[in-house]
Amino acid sequence: MDTLQILRMNGGEGETSYAKNSVVQRKIMSYESPSIEEAVTDILCKNFSETMGMADLGCSSGPNTLTLVSEVIDMVNSKSQKMGFSLPEVRVSLNDLPGNDFNDIFVSLPTFYQKQEEEKGKGFRNNCFISCVGGSFYGRLFPKKSLHLVHSSSSLHWLSRAPPRLAVDAAVPLNKGKIYISKTSPSSVSKAYLSQFREDLSLFLKSRSEEMVPGGRMVLSFLGRTSADPATEHGGHQWELLAKALTSMVSEGRVLEEKIDSFNAPYYAPSLEEVRNEVEEEGSFVIKSLKALEVEWDAGFQTDSACEIQENKRKISSRGGRVAKTIRAVVESMLESQFGRDIIDDLFVKYAELVDDYFSRTTPIYINLVLSVTRKGP
Amino acid sequence: MDTLQILRMNGGEGETSYAKNSVVQRKIMSYESPSIEEAVTDILCKNFSETMGMADLGCSSGPNTLTLVSEVIDMVNSKSQKMGFSLPEVRVSLNDLPGNDFNDIFVSLPTFYQKQEEEKGKGFRNNCFISCVGGSFYGRLFPKKSLHLVHSSSSLHWLSRAPPRLAVDAAVPLNKGKIYISKTSPSSVSKAYLSQFREDLSLFLKSRSEEMVPGGRMVLSFLGRTSADPATEHGGHQWELLAKALTSMVSEGRVLEEKIDSFNAPYYAPSLEEVRNEVEEEGSFVIKSLKALEVEWDAGFQTDSACEIQENKRKISSRGGRVAKTIRAVVESMLESQFGRDIIDDLFVKYAELVDDYFSRTTPIYINLVLSVTRKGP
Repeated sequence: MDTLQILRMNGGEGETSYAKNSVVQRKIMSYESPSIEEAVTDILCKNFSETMGMADLGCSSGPNTLTLVSEVIDMVNSKSQKMGFSLPEVRVSLNDLPGNDFNDIFVSLPTFYQKQEEEKGKGFRNNCFISCVGGSFYGRLFPKKSLHLVHSSSSLHWLSRAPPRLAVDAAVPLNKGKIYISKTSPSSVSKAYLSQFREDLSLFLKSRSEEMVPGGRMVLSFLGRTSADPATEHGGHQWELLAKALTSMVSEGRVLEEKIDSFNAPYYAPSLEEVRNEVEEEGSFVIKSLKALEVEWDAGFQTDSACEIQENKRKISSRGGRVAKTIRAVVESMLESQFGRDIIDDLFVKYAELVDDYFSRTTPIYINLVLSVTRKGP
Repeated sequence: MDTLQILRMNGGEGETSYAKNSVVQRKIMSYESPSIEEAVTDILCKNFSETMGMADLGCSSGPNTLTLVSEVIDMVNSKSQKMGFSLPEVRVSLNDLPGNDFNDIFVSLPTFYQKQEEEKGKGFRNNCFISCVGGSFYGRLFPKKSLHLVHSSSSLHWLSRAPPRLAVDAAVPLNKGKIYISKTSPSSVSKAYLSQFREDLSLFLKSRSEEMVPGGRMVLSFLGRTSADPATEHGGHQWELLAKALTSMVSEGRVLEEKIDSFNAPYYAPSLEEVRNEVEEEGSFVIKSLKALEVEWDAGFQTDSACEIQENKRKISSRGGRVAKTIRAVVESMLESQFGRDIIDDLFVKYAELVDDYFSRTTPIYINLVLSVTRKGP
C-alpha cells in the first residue's frame, strides 16, 4: 500500500500527538541550522529577484512546523540587512501528505503572524505569505522554477511504499518475523529496500529540479547510517524492537504472525555513499555538503523540554517510555492500518520496556544525515 | 468580535455539515459561469505568461470547493486549444478563514487529481498546482502581482466584524430585539452597517489590487439587494426570522434578551449602487459588469439533489426544514459563540417553522449580485 494512505503523524494536541512528541525532530532541526544559514546567504548573494520561494517538505503539524519558517525569515532579514539589500517578499509553502493535520497549522497562523509582527514589525504580514500544499513529495508539487530554497527534515527516510518485491506471496515470507532489514534478513531484502530508495530519491530530485530555479538551494535531513551494512543497529534498531514487541503479542493471540511477516516498514536509512551515488546519478544537483550526525534516541528531552518532563514526571517515567511516545506519534497510523487499533496501547507499553532494556545495555543513537545541494543550471 | 474568530462553515461530512448543505451556493455558482468564462477568455487573450495564478476566496470545504477549480481548468483547456495556445501552468490558491475545514479539502485532493487525470490526461497533475491559504480576505493574502483570476462566491456579504458603532453600551440598545437591519431599526443602524461594508470592501479591493497583475480579472458574487432600502425583505429577511426564533426562546428562559440585543450579524447585503460607488471610489478596478439575479431560498434542491432529497425524505420534510439546514451549516459557529451550544437544535426547529410559514405567504428569494471587474494598470 502507498505510504500516502497509511503514513501521517498523530494529529491534534493530545497526549499521543506528534505536536506533543516531536522534541527529537526539533533537536535534529537545530543541527541543520548552519546548513540552512549558508544556503540562505548563498541565495541572497545570487540576488535572484524581489521574491523568494521556499518550501518545507514533510512539515507535519505542531510547534516544529512554524519554528522553521520563523528561523528562516530571521535569517533572511538579518542577512539582507547586512548585505544592504531590501527585504525580499517570502513565499512559504508547507507540504505534507494529504492526511496531515493541516487544520492545526491554519488555526495557529493568526497567533504566529501576531507574534512575528510584534518581533519584526507591522510589515511582516504583507511580506511573508504562507500556503499549504498536500501531496507526496515523490512527484511534482509546485509550479516550474518557483522555489529558491527547499527544506525537508525527518521525512525523506520514508519511502513512497514498502518495497513491492517483498510482497511476493512466497511459501516462506522473505522477511519472516521482521518489519525492516534485520541481521537475519536475506540479502534480497536489503536489495529490495535499496532499490526502492533509489527509485524514490531519484524521483524526488527530478521533481524538485523542475520546481527550483537554477542556483536554488536544498537542505535535506533524514535518518541514515555511516556503516555500509544496511542491517547496522544505528540504521533501524527501532524497527527490530518493534518487531519484537509485535512478536510477543503473537503468543497472546492478539497479533497474527502472518500480519508481521507481510508488513515491511516503508522506511530506509541509506548510507552516505548510497545518497551521494544517487544524487550524482540523477544529475540535477551539485552536493555542497553531506554530513552524518549522531542523535540520541531521546535527544531533546533533557534540554529543550526540561520543564515539560518535570510536569509529566509520573507519566513519562523512563527513557524507554519517552522514546516509545516519540515513535508512536509517528508510526501509529501505519501500525493501526496493519494490526488494528486495539493492540496499539499495549504494544507501546511492551515497546517501552524493550527500549528501556536496550538503554540499559547501550546508548542508542540515530544517525542523521544532512545533505545540502545546489540546483545546477545556467 | 472579529468574524475571523466566529465564522466558519460547519466542517466534516455529517448531517449538519456545509458539505451536505450547500446546494444553494452551488446553484449560485452556476449563475456565475458566463462571467467566469468571459474573464478566462480575456485573460488568455492577454497571453500574460506561461503561468496563470487563480484564487478562490472563501472556498469553504465540501463538493463546491473543487468543482470551481475543475470548471475553470476545463475553460482554460478548451479556450487555449481553440486559440491555438499551449496550456498554461495553473496555480490555484484556495482561501478561507483559518478555522475552515482545510483537512477536508486535502484528503479529497488525491481522488480529485485521479479523476481529472482520467478526464484530461496524465499531464494534469504536473500542470495544475493547488495550495490552501488561511486568512481573512480583508487584508493581504498573496504575493505581489501573482494572480490573474480571482473568484469569490457567497462570501463577500460577510463583514470583517459587526459594525462596532452598534456595540456602544447605550441604556437602550440601538437594534433592540434584532440581529440585522430591520424595518424597525433606526437609521443609525443601517448607516453603521453601510459604513462597515464600505471600509471592508475598500480594503478587499486594495489588497487584491496589489496581488493581481494589471489586466487581471475578478468575478465576485455575493448576496445583495436591488432596492435602495437596506431593510428590504430581499436583503436580510433570513435574519429577521432568526431574530424571531431567538426571541421566542427568551420567554422559555433559554435565551437572554440582552444576548440578542448585543448581537449583530457581521453581514451586509449591499445595493447595486453601493457596490458600484465603492469600486469606483477605491479606483483600482474597472467594472465590466454588475448584475443582480434572483435565487429562491431553497434553490438547487429541486433539481441538483433530487436523489438526495428522496433519500432523506423523512428528515427533510419541508422547504422550511431544508432552508434551516442551509442556514445552520453557515451560521452555527457564530450563534454558538453568542448563545451557547445547547439551544442550537431547538432554535433551528423553530426557525424551520417560521420559514415554512413565510413560504406559505410568499416565494422568498435572495438577490445575488455578480460583479466582474478588471484590474487597471499599464
